[in-house]
Amino acid sequence: MHELITSKANEKIKLAARVRDSAKARREEGLFFAEGARLCADAAGSTAVKTLFYTEKAAEKYGEELALLFEKSDEIYLVSGAAADRLSDTFSPQGIFCVCKTLDKSNNISIIYSKSKLIALENIQDPSNLGAVIRTAEALGVGGAVLCGCCDIYNPKAQRAAMGSLLRLPMVTVDDLPQTMAMFAERGFMTLSSTPDAAADDITKTDLGEKTICVIGNEGSGVTEATANSCLKRVRVPMGGRAESLNASMAAAIIMWELMR
Amino acid sequence: MHELITSKANEKIKLAARVRDSAKARREEGLFFAEGARLCADAAGSTAVKTLFYTEKAAEKYGEELALLFEKSDEIYLVSGAAADRLSDTFSPQGIFCVCKTLDKSNNISIIYSKSKLIALENIQDPSNLGAVIRTAEALGVGGAVLCGCCDIYNPKAQRAAMGSLLRLPMVTVDDLPQTMAMFAERGFMTLSSTPDAAADDITKTDLGEKTICVIGNEGSGVTEATANSCLKRVRVPMGGRAESLNASMAAAIIMWELMR
Repeated sequence: MHELITSKANEKIKLAARVRDSAKARREEGLFFAEGARLCADAAGSTAVKTLFYTEKAAEKYGEELALLFEKSDEIYLVSGAAADRLSDTFSPQGIFCVCKTLDKSNNISIIYSKSKLIALENIQDPSNLGAVIRTAEALGVGGAVLCGCCDIYNPKAQRAAMGSLLRLPMVTVDDLPQTMAMFAERGFMTLSSTPDAAADDITKTDLGEKTICVIGNEGSGVTEATANSCLKRVRVPMGGRAESLNASMAAAIIMWELMR
Repeated sequence: MHELITSKANEKIKLAARVRDSAKARREEGLFFAEGARLCADAAGSTAVKTLFYTEKAAEKYGEELALLFEKSDEIYLVSGAAADRLSDTFSPQGIFCVCKTLDKSNNISIIYSKSKLIALENIQDPSNLGAVIRTAEALGVGGAVLCGCCDIYNPKAQRAAMGSLLRLPMVTVDDLPQTMAMFAERGFMTLSSTPDAAADDITKTDLGEKTICVIGNEGSGVTEATANSCLKRVRVPMGGRAESLNASMAAAIIMWELMR
């Protein structure tokens, strides 16, 4: 039987809520928070689970996911009442929560250089957009992602939208994207920046090369001029309709699709 | 100066909340509800606004949109307090709400037959998905949509996700989609049903013809067997990665993109 926590003032509960709510706490502790049966199981498949919390109701309903999580978690607590309420961040909580170790990404740049189709995301600010783009990247078979100036990948909304893909897809974070794009070009990558500008090359008529990386920019302002200038080509998605209607993650999906096509 | 409503028991407020919350009320009254400066302005561009409600704060912030709405609305009320709270359905209300007439779609089938690229949506149940797919269809230049068994297009969540496109894109609702697809085939359309099934034709290698209509199915269960059987071909989106990760509206975006490419 696992130890029961009922108080929201419990130190374990307070730590979990802190890493859930604060990017700074996640960075300092090297931990992040996941909620829900599927997401916690996905996390356990990709990283170490430090603490698992579950409610009695969850034990009845999600036996299979919990059996896996029981095996993989360092510490396990049953929660109820105010403690469970304090952990939940969703409208219909499933009663499964875990605190996981953030991933060590120090080897990722060499993995990423070995892939042939990549995306770079610059200043994506909305966590749900970031999660949705990475989820689609994984589905289409994009090899990895370079992030610069984006919101925290361990933000709970990003994790929810990504359905585990933020933990599975190789990723690196860089400070200087123009310099990074120049490095990719030196290594033989075709480097592209995407833009809605009609003067850019039609992506369906552009030779994308064997190895390609394409930058996708901020939801409102697009790719920065410095980064666009550092790329070999500018490409656009030609659109027959009311182009301003295409939202950022849909545009990214079409660019990635063309990259992989 | 417009008449002020402060009580949530006011008949105009009660009608607005009723058509906001109930598909049955929308059908019976021939009315729907829109909230927010941009969405109300979009609605006024596509249909008649029966009643406009606005708060004093909105008048300061959204002067431009309100000027347009003042011109186009049959009745206009200033709202405050409990009345404004009763109308709002969002986390950060802008204080602009309107009740609009649903569109007369009786002529749409002849408009739709005149287009060359169309989609049919079968049993799409999530209003946000329905709105997102129609928004993308409009952006890419798809000519219109045939709906069968989908959720109500006037659902506030669908309207929010669609950003006005549900009012602009030609649409018809049909009861018998297999019969409708057979009619499109008789009129010279290539009729397609989309499926994740590996036995289906690769959409990138399929001759889609001059005039094409493609069925996109329910988020979980896909296109029904009866409808798939009524189409000339089954097509799939070939995916290099973890295909189960692609969400329904992203898959629909890629299908529509290939249709228009």
